[in-house]
Amino acid sequence: MSERSGYSPAVLKLLEKYKADLFQEVNIKLVDHREINGIILPRPFYGDPDVLVLKLPNGYNIGIEYKKIKYIAVISPAKRKPLVELALPHLREDLPLVYMLSTGGTIASRIDYSTGAVYPFFTAEEIYRMVPELLDLAYIKAETVYSIFSEDMTPKRWDELAKRIYEIYRKEAPAGIIVAHGTDTMGYTAAAIAFAVRNLPGPVIFVGSQRSSDRPSSDTALNVICAVKTAIEAPFGESVVVMHGCTSDDYCLAHRGVKVRKMHTSRRDAFRSVNDIPLALIRPQQRIKLLTSRYLKRSEEEPQLLGGFEEKVALIKFYPGMHPEILEFLHEEGYKGIVIEATGLGHVSEKLVEPIRKMVKDGIPIVITSQCMWGRVNLNVYRRGVELIKAGALPGEDMLPETAFVKLSWVLKRADDIESAYKMMLTNYVYEINPRSEERFYPPVWR
Amino acid sequence: MSERSGYSPAVLKLLEKYKADLFQEVNIKLVDHREINGIILPRPFYGDPDVLVLKLPNGYNIGIEYKKIKYIAVISPAKRKPLVELALPHLREDLPLVYMLSTGGTIASRIDYSTGAVYPFFTAEEIYRMVPELLDLAYIKAETVYSIFSEDMTPKRWDELAKRIYEIYRKEAPAGIIVAHGTDTMGYTAAAIAFAVRNLPGPVIFVGSQRSSDRPSSDTALNVICAVKTAIEAPFGESVVVMHGCTSDDYCLAHRGVKVRKMHTSRRDAFRSVNDIPLALIRPQQRIKLLTSRYLKRSEEEPQLLGGFEEKVALIKFYPGMHPEILEFLHEEGYKGIVIEATGLGHVSEKLVEPIRKMVKDGIPIVITSQCMWGRVNLNVYRRGVELIKAGALPGEDMLPETAFVKLSWVLKRADDIESAYKMMLTNYVYEINPRSEERFYPPVWR
Repeated sequence: MSERSGYSPAVLKLLEKYKADLFQEVNIKLVDHREINGIILPRPFYGDPDVLVLKLPNGYNIGIEYKKIKYIAVISPAKRKPLVELALPHLREDLPLVYMLSTGGTIASRIDYSTGAVYPFFTAEEIYRMVPELLDLAYIKAETVYSIFSEDMTPKRWDELAKRIYEIYRKEAPAGIIVAHGTDTMGYTAAAIAFAVRNLPGPVIFVGSQRSSDRPSSDTALNVICAVKTAIEAPFGESVVVMHGCTSDDYCLAHRGVKVRKMHTSRRDAFRSVNDIPLALIRPQQRIKLLTSRYLKRSEEEPQLLGGFEEKVALIKFYPGMHPEILEFLHEEGYKGIVIEATGLGHVSEKLVEPIRKMVKDGIPIVITSQCMWGRVNLNVYRRGVELIKAGALPGEDMLPETAFVKLSWVLKRADDIESAYKMMLTNYVYEINPRSEERFYPPVWR
Repeated sequence: MSERSGYSPAVLKLLEKYKADLFQEVNIKLVDHREINGIILPRPFYGDPDVLVLKLPNGYNIGIEYKKIKYIAVISPAKRKPLVELALPHLREDLPLVYMLSTGGTIASRIDYSTGAVYPFFTAEEIYRMVPELLDLAYIKAETVYSIFSEDMTPKRWDELAKRIYEIYRKEAPAGIIVAHGTDTMGYTAAAIAFAVRNLPGPVIFVGSQRSSDRPSSDTALNVICAVKTAIEAPFGESVVVMHGCTSDDYCLAHRGVKVRKMHTSRRDAFRSVNDIPLALIRPQQRIKLLTSRYLKRSEEEPQLLGGFEEKVALIKFYPGMHPEILEFLHEEGYKGIVIEATGLGHVSEKLVEPIRKMVKDGIPIVITSQCMWGRVNLNVYRRGVELIKAGALPGEDMLPETAFVKLSWVLKRADDIESAYKMMLTNYVYEINPRSEERFYPPVWR
C-alpha cells in the first residue's frame, strides 16, 4: 500500500504479522514491558523508516523503533484520520501578494494523513489550512524550491535560491518573499541572500519551526503569521530571520540575516542577534514595531542579482594544540580562502602564524574572526595579533564567523586579488559590520 | 641600554635620532599631523617591538608604530618613573595559604617601570603591591609556571599544570590554588584541570584580566580579590573561572570550568556559564554567596592525578558545503578522535556521513556537539541524526564543544577501544553534563 511505503520492510512485516494498518487504533506492547495506545500514522517525510509513528491520545506523536515492539493488538479495525479537511473559501487576490518559497526543514515536515507519508509539497492551500488567519491577511503563492534538510544546503543552492528570489521580485513584484527553511543553517543562508540579492523592493524573510506543526507545542503558526506580517508591513528590504522572540506564543523578532545565529538546539527563541539588535518586533494583532532606524529601506530601484559563491572556502575553528598540518592541507588542496575562528581578540597559536604567512603569500585571504562571537576582533592589542597582521591576515571586525565565511565565499567570486578581496571584506555592504559596539548588543547579565 | 632592549632597532634608532630616552616626557608629532604628549615607557612584555609606548597624562598607555612618528621633542630631560614603590609590611603567615600559579596572559602583562621592559615574573610581592587588600586576607605564595599567551597552551601544558596543582595540594595543603591565565583559552584549560586533578581538598581558580593592570580601567584587582576569597571561603573543590560578573567593579562570578566560555572579545564580563548557572557570586566585602547546591565538595580524601591528554584530537566546526576531504585527511593523518561542532540538534550534511562511518569502523570516536552551544544534542529527532547514530557517532549531550574536545583528549589516554571511550564520554565525571536543562541556563530574552 502506497501510504505505508515510507516504512522499512521490517516495519511493514511487523504490521502484516499483527494485521495492523494505518490509522487504526492499536495497543503496542514493548520489549521493556511498557504498553502504548495510539493511532498508527504514516511515516513522516523526515522520519526514520525503521520507526513506527503513533498519535497518542494527548495529541502528541511518538516514534517506536520496530525492534522494541513485542506485540501489536488492534483495538479497533476502523480507520480514524485525525485531521479534519478544511474547505478553502475563495482566495482574495485583492490582498497583498506574498511569495512563500520552501527549501525544506521542520516547517515543511508534516504528515499528510489523507494521502500517505511522503510530503515534499508546500502549497498555498496547506499553508492556509495550517494558519487560517492568513486568509484575511495575504494572497499567498507558494513554491517548493528544495525539500532538503538545511544541513544539506550548499553555496551552489544559495546561488540558485538567490536567482529565484531575484526573478520573483522582478516579475511578480510581491510585497515580500518568505523562505521556509530548516533552522540549522538558516543563519548562513540568510547571510548569503543578503549579499547576493540587493536593492530589494521588499524583505526576504526566513522562517522555520523548532517543533513540527503536527505537535501541539508547534511554533509554526506564530512564526508564519509574523513572517507574513513582516512581508507586508516592514519598511525594510533586507534578508531577515523571523522566529519566536520568547518561549510563549507572544511575539516574534526579525533579526538581520548577517547578524543572527541559532543559539539553542531546541528552544523556540533559539535565534538571537549578535553584535546588533533585532530590526523589529512582531505581534499577530498589532502593527510591526521597528526597533531601530538603521536598516536598508525597500528600494525603488531595480533589484540587483550578485550571485556566485566560491565553494573552496573553509571555516576553521582554532583550538589549543591545533596542528598546522590542517592549514597546510587546505593550502595544498587549493582552497581559495579561509576564515579562522580565533580566540579572544583574534589570536591563534604561534605554530599557525607561518602557514598563514605562506597562504597569504600565495594570494589566499585569511580572515580572522572570534569564537567569542560577541565583540570585535582587534589585532593591535597583543603581540600575537600584530604578528598575524604582519603575516597578512585580515581582522574581520565584529562579523560573525559564519557571516565572514559566507561573505568570503561571495567575495572570492568577484575580487581579482587578495588586496581587493580584503577591501571587499571590510566594505560594509548590508550592515554586516557594526562600526560601533553598543552595550545592548550583549545579552543581559545573569543574576 | 638594557631597559630599552625590548624595542626593535628601528625604534631605538628613532629614539637616538631625537636624543629621547625612557621615562622622559616628550611631545610626539605624527605623520597624520596629530600630536601626543606623554612619558616614554619600556616595551611591555607582550608588546610589539615596533611600537613605542607612551604613558598619557590621563594615566592610559598608548602604543605608536614607529613608522607613524614624524618628530620627537623632549619636553623635560628628567626621568619620571610613574610607579611609586610600596614597601611591604611583614607578611602574616598565620593567614590562610593561597597558592598563585602564573601561566602568562594579560594579568601577568605589566611594565616594570624600574627595571625595564620584559616582565616574566609574577611574585607574591608584586601581587600584594597590585592589590594591597590581600595583605589582611591571605598568605600568598606565587610561582611562574609559564609566561606565554594562552593561545599557546597545549594538551602537554595542561598535563604539566595538572601535575603541579596536584603536587602543591599534596605537599603544601593550601586553602586554594589560583591560576593566573590568559583569558583566550582559559575555558579549555579550566576544563582540562577539572578532568585531570580530582578529589581536590580545595578549588582551582582560574583568573585573568581583560584590561592590563597598568590601565585605570583594569579588572585585575577585583578579579584577584574575588579569586583569593573563593580560594579561602568556597565549599567546593572544583576547577572554576572567577571573573567579573558585570561591567562595573561590583562582583565576580565563579563559573564551573567545564561549563564556561569566553563570550565577548573585550568586555570585563566576557565569561558566561553555558547550560548551567554559576557556582557562586563573590563581592569583595561580603562572604562568598553560593548559587547552587550542585557542586563537588572539598574532598577529605587524597587528591588524585589523572594526567595525560591525547594530542591527535581535532575539533571541527561543520559549515554548509563542507567537503568530506577534511575528515578524510584527519583519518589518513592518524587522528585518534574528532569532536564535530554540528548544527542544531547535531546534524551534518549527507556527504559527511560516509567518512564518519569509515572512521568509526577504524575505531576512531566521533563525538557530535552543537554550534548552537546552548541546549542538548539529540540524534533521535530527525533522519540525519538517526543516520549519524547508525554510522556510529556519539551524541555529546549538552557538553560544550570545547569541553567535549578536552574530555575526548583526556579519555583517549585511558580508554582501550571506541566502546569504552564512548562510555567514558557519557560518564558525568565533574558535572560536565547536565542531565536536565533548566530555563535559567539560557540568557534572558532580549527586549
